[in-house]
Amino acid sequence: MAKDKTPRRPRAETPKGFRDYFGSDVTDRAAMLATIAGVYRSYGFEALETPAVETVEALGKFLPDVDRPNEGVFAWQDEDKDWLALRYDLTAPLARVYAQHRADLPTPYRRYAMGPVWRNEKPGPGRFRQFYQCDADTVGTPTVAADAEICAMLADVFATLGLGGDFIIRVNNRKVLNGVMEVAGVLDPDDPEKFAHERGIVLRAIDKLDRLGPEGVRALLGPGRTDDSGDFTRGAGLSPDQAAIVMGFIAARRDSSAATLARLAELVSGSDMGRQGVAELDTIAALLDAQGYGPDRIVIDPATVRGLGYYTGPVFEAELTFEVTDDKGRRQQFGSVAGGGRYDDLVKRFTGEAVPATGISIGVDRLLAALRARSRGDARTDPGPVVVTVMDRDRMADYLAIAADLRRAGIRAEVYLGNPKNFGNQMKYADKRAAPLAIIQGAEEQARGVVQIKDLVLGAEIAASATLEEWKDRPAQVECPRADLVARVRAMLAGQP
Amino acid sequence: MAKDKTPRRPRAETPKGFRDYFGSDVTDRAAMLATIAGVYRSYGFEALETPAVETVEALGKFLPDVDRPNEGVFAWQDEDKDWLALRYDLTAPLARVYAQHRADLPTPYRRYAMGPVWRNEKPGPGRFRQFYQCDADTVGTPTVAADAEICAMLADVFATLGLGGDFIIRVNNRKVLNGVMEVAGVLDPDDPEKFAHERGIVLRAIDKLDRLGPEGVRALLGPGRTDDSGDFTRGAGLSPDQAAIVMGFIAARRDSSAATLARLAELVSGSDMGRQGVAELDTIAALLDAQGYGPDRIVIDPATVRGLGYYTGPVFEAELTFEVTDDKGRRQQFGSVAGGGRYDDLVKRFTGEAVPATGISIGVDRLLAALRARSRGDARTDPGPVVVTVMDRDRMADYLAIAADLRRAGIRAEVYLGNPKNFGNQMKYADKRAAPLAIIQGAEEQARGVVQIKDLVLGAEIAASATLEEWKDRPAQVECPRADLVARVRAMLAGQP
Repeated sequence: MAKDKTPRRPRAETPKGFRDYFGSDVTDRAAMLATIAGVYRSYGFEALETPAVETVEALGKFLPDVDRPNEGVFAWQDEDKDWLALRYDLTAPLARVYAQHRADLPTPYRRYAMGPVWRNEKPGPGRFRQFYQCDADTVGTPTVAADAEICAMLADVFATLGLGGDFIIRVNNRKVLNGVMEVAGVLDPDDPEKFAHERGIVLRAIDKLDRLGPEGVRALLGPGRTDDSGDFTRGAGLSPDQAAIVMGFIAARRDSSAATLARLAELVSGSDMGRQGVAELDTIAALLDAQGYGPDRIVIDPATVRGLGYYTGPVFEAELTFEVTDDKGRRQQFGSVAGGGRYDDLVKRFTGEAVPATGISIGVDRLLAALRARSRGDARTDPGPVVVTVMDRDRMADYLAIAADLRRAGIRAEVYLGNPKNFGNQMKYADKRAAPLAIIQGAEEQARGVVQIKDLVLGAEIAASATLEEWKDRPAQVECPRADLVARVRAMLAGQP
Repeated sequence: MAKDKTPRRPRAETPKGFRDYFGSDVTDRAAMLATIAGVYRSYGFEALETPAVETVEALGKFLPDVDRPNEGVFAWQDEDKDWLALRYDLTAPLARVYAQHRADLPTPYRRYAMGPVWRNEKPGPGRFRQFYQCDADTVGTPTVAADAEICAMLADVFATLGLGGDFIIRVNNRKVLNGVMEVAGVLDPDDPEKFAHERGIVLRAIDKLDRLGPEGVRALLGPGRTDDSGDFTRGAGLSPDQAAIVMGFIAARRDSSAATLARLAELVSGSDMGRQGVAELDTIAALLDAQGYGPDRIVIDPATVRGLGYYTGPVFEAELTFEVTDDKGRRQQFGSVAGGGRYDDLVKRFTGEAVPATGISIGVDRLLAALRARSRGDARTDPGPVVVTVMDRDRMADYLAIAADLRRAGIRAEVYLGNPKNFGNQMKYADKRAAPLAIIQGAEEQARGVVQIKDLVLGAEIAASATLEEWKDRPAQVECPRADLVARVRAMLAGQP
């Protein structure tokens, strides 16, 4: 049998878990990130862009999230047998940068970074292997004024994006939680490694409060929990008394920050670290209050712990509070769009010296989805171009001149460059381009020095309408002198007939 | 011997050939790309962002540049044993996208893309393995009006970036070169594969005209060339008569496009393809001329061929013509910053159908370097923040309020968050931040309701100056009421004492 000589064609597909972004998906995100960068810069944060590729050694091979220890990175060996990998977040590269360039960087170093990160995880619906993060961190200072600043800045970001009144930033402190653990007998300040496993379970249990409710968390603090499917998750093994102390911590939120802090102070009175944590929260609350960020925007919430193991002090989580309709038609709050906190050991990996740092990471795709959910029904942010049709292919220069005139007036415009033979195809093209208007000039119009302007939005409305009666005063196509074209187009785009 | 229990610390280094970008390196590039995107969008081009990762199959395993066939991509096998790789340009992903989504995309499809690409090449000085490209392409139309549009749009990009009068876009047509090859007997229209190797050498020889001069090119058209180091490069083996025809093509440029085209028409009169190429150039020249792009901005230049093998029609190359001083102190033109052309076979790899396409790629780093070389001496584009110093750490809320007031007035401002004990360190920090002003308010100033504003730019000038005489009327530090702070800072930033 003769071999098939035709080489197999490559499949035109993105790799699994990757996707393309078209048009306004790109420009809306860019506009949002530019707005955020403007707020960050106003606070004195400087841009940093690290490469997509780091050594596995610098990155640390696995994600810091202990909940998912086996999920990894995209990695390969280079020609020198060194392992390289795509960054999985923007914090690990920041730690590498600070260790590498600390002699040249100001201390404290405030930096922001925005860009894609990559996770070699199983893709799923809405779960991609490349996605954007947008971080701001302050490296090199232990003062909680830096933590308060991050919270204030995040509140300003939301306000600048038009989400004022629709967000809440929750602040807590790992030191307070550790104080509670000490009081409950699952943390020995003289032997920090002891009970580390149990504390990890406690941390992740509290982090699931929203989903499991208090009963579910309490079960995980004790012997364990059987979920609806019958699967059993082993708990931290705390005694009922120990669990009660932790549950008391979660429930410590009161009507005012002062009252919450007073309650926390009672709970951790037996722990130095706990008292220090409460004092830090007290300072943060006072600084934010003095700047006018009331508890309607930034609140002390003991139930906020953040799942990541590396936080060492204040932790933050931002939620959007407006309601959206979920897949099943239920109304629910939009939810978390950013989180962060203080971490003191990431740079130490490189230098041996602890470098205090604090920061926030915004989930870019979620925040963009939130902005779009909020603005639904508003005017289209990304209008298509005016399409200049081609009635006579020998007069291309005239059509290009029309488009150039429109562009010079700041109006997005293009000439149809497909085969002009079939006018219907040109109209279909204009429709696909979401063009608001089409310009038409045949030989007859040219002879008379006029152009036709077709209002495609109005045309579509008329076509969809049951009766032409209501449209009789607004023709979907108007004629005007070529010399008046730009002014007329501008008026029509502004909604004037 | 006891084992060393301390794990080796990771090295804080970027992988070889990668680098970090700080501050204005990031923001200047972002601003430039936003300007370019604005021009592209005004022409009706739509944004497209493809993932960094593609299947090796979709990408094609090697770069299309036949000059460097062994230089490759960063690739790895995923869990399903499929090979994935980082994209090496933005054209291969565009071909994949068009093949994948062509049913949903308008035809012609005008798109722009900007982002990093990766090359697994040997790094060198100024040669990185991750760098930005910025492309615009029109897919799905054979009309040379699309090629003319790309050239006009590129001219508008340069003008919008403030480079009007400092650039030249050279246009040629591979079909004319192929016509010349046919006349010279190194292209047989009935057997296009014959002499393909020789034609590749001819193409790359012409592409090196700038560097080797006419004699060097002629040697490579013939038996070959020995360079200054004694290395021999084998030539295309053309006879002297054949080489003379090709050299005549390179030298065909005349004072006007019309005269150049007339000369080209003579040279290729024996070739259908050559005549078609000249007709296409004629159309392009006419369309550009009608839109007012004279030969001072866009010129027909037979010596421009572009090295890449995949171009099939018009090719473009943009040079910046202003002079810069090179490493050796010599004045020379800045040179090439963008190139492109028509390619008809990239989508065919996937679908089997030829899809005509044309486009341009801007070398982002080179263009940014050019803009900076041009603006050298201009005002700093990225001023540092006003730094609010901390004289009393218990009054942090007051200092934060000062910074917040400045920010609300649109002035970049930050509070010093390092250890405030040593005031000299605060001033060093402000210096490292390139802060124009520092705000100082100790207990004494607070009691009187005033602040001190220190002009750090002026202070540095005074410090560097031989005599204090000339500065006596402009004190580097002024006092003003706290209530007047914002107005005073604004005035000082505007250069008013």
